[in-house]
Amino acid sequence: MPVVNAGVHIEFPSWLVDAATACPPLATPEARMAFVLDLARRNVASGSGGPFAAAVYEIASGRLLAAATNLVVASACSAAHAEVLALALAQQAVGTHDLGAPGSPAVELVASCEPCAMCLGAVAWSGVRRLACAASGRDAEALGFDEGPKPADWVGELRRREIEVVEGVMREAAVAILHAYRAAGGRIYNARAGSV
Amino acid sequence: MPVVNAGVHIEFPSWLVDAATACPPLATPEARMAFVLDLARRNVASGSGGPFAAAVYEIASGRLLAAATNLVVASACSAAHAEVLALALAQQAVGTHDLGAPGSPAVELVASCEPCAMCLGAVAWSGVRRLACAASGRDAEALGFDEGPKPADWVGELRRREIEVVEGVMREAAVAILHAYRAAGGRIYNARAGSV
Repeated sequence: MPVVNAGVHIEFPSWLVDAATACPPLATPEARMAFVLDLARRNVASGSGGPFAAAVYEIASGRLLAAATNLVVASACSAAHAEVLALALAQQAVGTHDLGAPGSPAVELVASCEPCAMCLGAVAWSGVRRLACAASGRDAEALGFDEGPKPADWVGELRRREIEVVEGVMREAAVAILHAYRAAGGRIYNARAGSV
Repeated sequence: MPVVNAGVHIEFPSWLVDAATACPPLATPEARMAFVLDLARRNVASGSGGPFAAAVYEIASGRLLAAATNLVVASACSAAHAEVLALALAQQAVGTHDLGAPGSPAVELVASCEPCAMCLGAVAWSGVRRLACAASGRDAEALGFDEGPKPADWVGELRRREIEVVEGVMREAAVAILHAYRAAGGRIYNARAGSV
């Protein structure tokens, strides 16, 4: 039998589900990012995965729709980046693949780092109206992470698709998490060299 | 409660699982693509989703590791493109996020269409050593599908990451499937205009 599974299943760690369930509405960009950065820290501390997290919020109310962390290794799935998982979880919670469907409240993705090539595409297809990031792609690359095959003007590409981009929200705190991960010997994988 | 799910779950239709389970080793690029194109046709005919399919094969033996179709609407997940799902299913079947892990047989992704921006990134992270495509991005865009924020030299980007790219395998047959889908009034979604 060539296929052992009848679908793709990615379970979230219970601490992550509990944290998301307990999250109150968050009014400011900084409060929304602080919640995300705390998840990134806890993802590393708990051994769940890499130092990245993301969450989907309703822009007006600050209500959390979904939160996720990098679960690539634990879920045996290279697409299990925090951004992809947060968007998918939000879409499945709402019950549609389009978070920008007519009549639904506008939502944003808040991410601990600028999107890689794959997550950039995932954002474009998701229906979010805004993307807020903390660390930059250069910050991640400085640590050995690979951003992948991404157009130079990725911000313009999203804006042309009517997705607002806000860069550098709490960037220093996010960079500190990446550095702490590397200093602790955390696994850094990229497409050219595998794990390093 | 902001979060209703404790994970992301994408179930495959039973006809797809049955077809993949019954697939014998396939020796030639055309035989591997013909199997994929048949899945794309059946995905539309069965109402499972859009006219796209992909499969992961061991390059040397032609053994199928995983096959998937576009399940975006059915699974309420905009990332549920055939390529992302086939790669994820293969990785979870093998038990690692890296299909190019040392000691494992080299594998390829065979896809009915050139990858969109998201799937391009997903291919880069997956560990596959070769990508074979049928229809081109322009073929898909001619029908209203959006390829997304993708670098112009996407082939070079993959080759620099030691991933071989083979374009145009059974292209005419793949384009015919896209045209038949459109002619039958199939749903075509893209990031700028939602479903059209």
